[in-house]
Amino acid sequence: MKPLFLLTNDDGYQASGLTTLIDIARGFGDVVVMAPEKNASGQSHSFTVDYPLYVSTVVKEQGLSVYYCNGKPVDCIKLGVEHFCPRQPDMVLSGINHGSNSSINILYSGTMGAALEAATIGIPAIGFSLLDHSAAADFSGSIPYVRSIIDSALKNKMQQGTALNVNIPAIESDKLKGIRVCRQSKASWLDAYRKVRDQQGRDCYWLAGRFQCDDNGEGTDQWALEHGYVSLVPITTDFTDTDSLSKTRCIYERIFKK
Amino acid sequence: MKPLFLLTNDDGYQASGLTTLIDIARGFGDVVVMAPEKNASGQSHSFTVDYPLYVSTVVKEQGLSVYYCNGKPVDCIKLGVEHFCPRQPDMVLSGINHGSNSSINILYSGTMGAALEAATIGIPAIGFSLLDHSAAADFSGSIPYVRSIIDSALKNKMQQGTALNVNIPAIESDKLKGIRVCRQSKASWLDAYRKVRDQQGRDCYWLAGRFQCDDNGEGTDQWALEHGYVSLVPITTDFTDTDSLSKTRCIYERIFKK
Repeated sequence: MKPLFLLTNDDGYQASGLTTLIDIARGFGDVVVMAPEKNASGQSHSFTVDYPLYVSTVVKEQGLSVYYCNGKPVDCIKLGVEHFCPRQPDMVLSGINHGSNSSINILYSGTMGAALEAATIGIPAIGFSLLDHSAAADFSGSIPYVRSIIDSALKNKMQQGTALNVNIPAIESDKLKGIRVCRQSKASWLDAYRKVRDQQGRDCYWLAGRFQCDDNGEGTDQWALEHGYVSLVPITTDFTDTDSLSKTRCIYERIFKK
Repeated sequence: MKPLFLLTNDDGYQASGLTTLIDIARGFGDVVVMAPEKNASGQSHSFTVDYPLYVSTVVKEQGLSVYYCNGKPVDCIKLGVEHFCPRQPDMVLSGINHGSNSSINILYSGTMGAALEAATIGIPAIGFSLLDHSAAADFSGSIPYVRSIIDSALKNKMQQGTALNVNIPAIESDKLKGIRVCRQSKASWLDAYRKVRDQQGRDCYWLAGRFQCDDNGEGTDQWALEHGYVSLVPITTDFTDTDSLSKTRCIYERIFKK
């Protein structure tokens, strides 16, 4: 039986990054797409609480169904798996995002929220991102890498509850140096809001932000990307800071000990 | 100098869980509150991209400022730290949430999104949640625990980039058995959307969901909560699945190796 893929993104169902990913995935098997109607960047792992979701069909043919809905990337996974896939998908693919989701950007990313949601329900998932924010980004250089990573992920069973965060420099394929498996760099977004006056003279705050990363030594995703490699970080939905468990235990378990 | 706390939540500035937390924090130092105007549950680590944020002042007196805005919990942290705190806060406190953020719920939680955002900018942060969703939840049993955990966190420097996820059974204080420092349980939300007909006869999908957790042995937060303990999980913004790095390296670094 051919593998079944569920695809989504956070740039909306018409984004060229998603179209590229559909073309690649169809080379491996059957494809169901459930994507947000509009851009849902920065939606992280949020889901829709306040209103019902409506679904529209764009394509329905042998081996390919494309739907969009008024939900967020995480909604798309839940809805796609439960109501629009003929069976549990073998793999979820999210992206190809227009813009980086390396380092701390994974926290805010709807693309990676979708991949992590798939991981929570035990479906192997890969999020792909190209380091070019523009709507007209050129995905051609990324294609051989995306294809080979999917191929390897199908052949090598991924551990349940994990996913892959793949980021790709926006350069030609033959200039990419290969793939580096990395840990996520520590970083932060500073100066996030700029104070401005609106047309009525009221103060308000517009999103701005400056990416600050001092953790870009070899072994990090920032290092890989800055040196022309595709970065691949295996990621988990377990937020436990395992390293500090025993120290934390010494401090807090003493309180009210009975 | 007295410690400075920045407080937020995801239930909105009028929620009684936040009022409880303000009262406790004022016993330790100065308090700035920046909270969402309305309920922002399920907002995870999302932030506001599409419109500017407006801020209203509720209280401004010696040692206590309370503001709300039309943003999400993560926005509240960014905005509060940059524009409404007289200096970098010594600690961020988020909650007390009405409802559990244990196990996989941390992924979806605005309360914990705010705590993790603080961690990305190097501010020690604690998210508190009571296991009672109702607006009228009784927080009295949690107070001695919340107070003692803040006290210990002030005395024992938290590691940069980490935060604490504290969940508290909704029972009387003297029935709580103490604190357990735990790892996050693996779990998932299944049957997330229910298909229904709207008033115009169109199909739509309403959020539903069933919590499924088989990972509730001793050492997990689910075990602690089910056995009458407060659960405390040290958490990180690093999503790297460290355990699978070397195996993943063997699979993917071979591709296109130059």
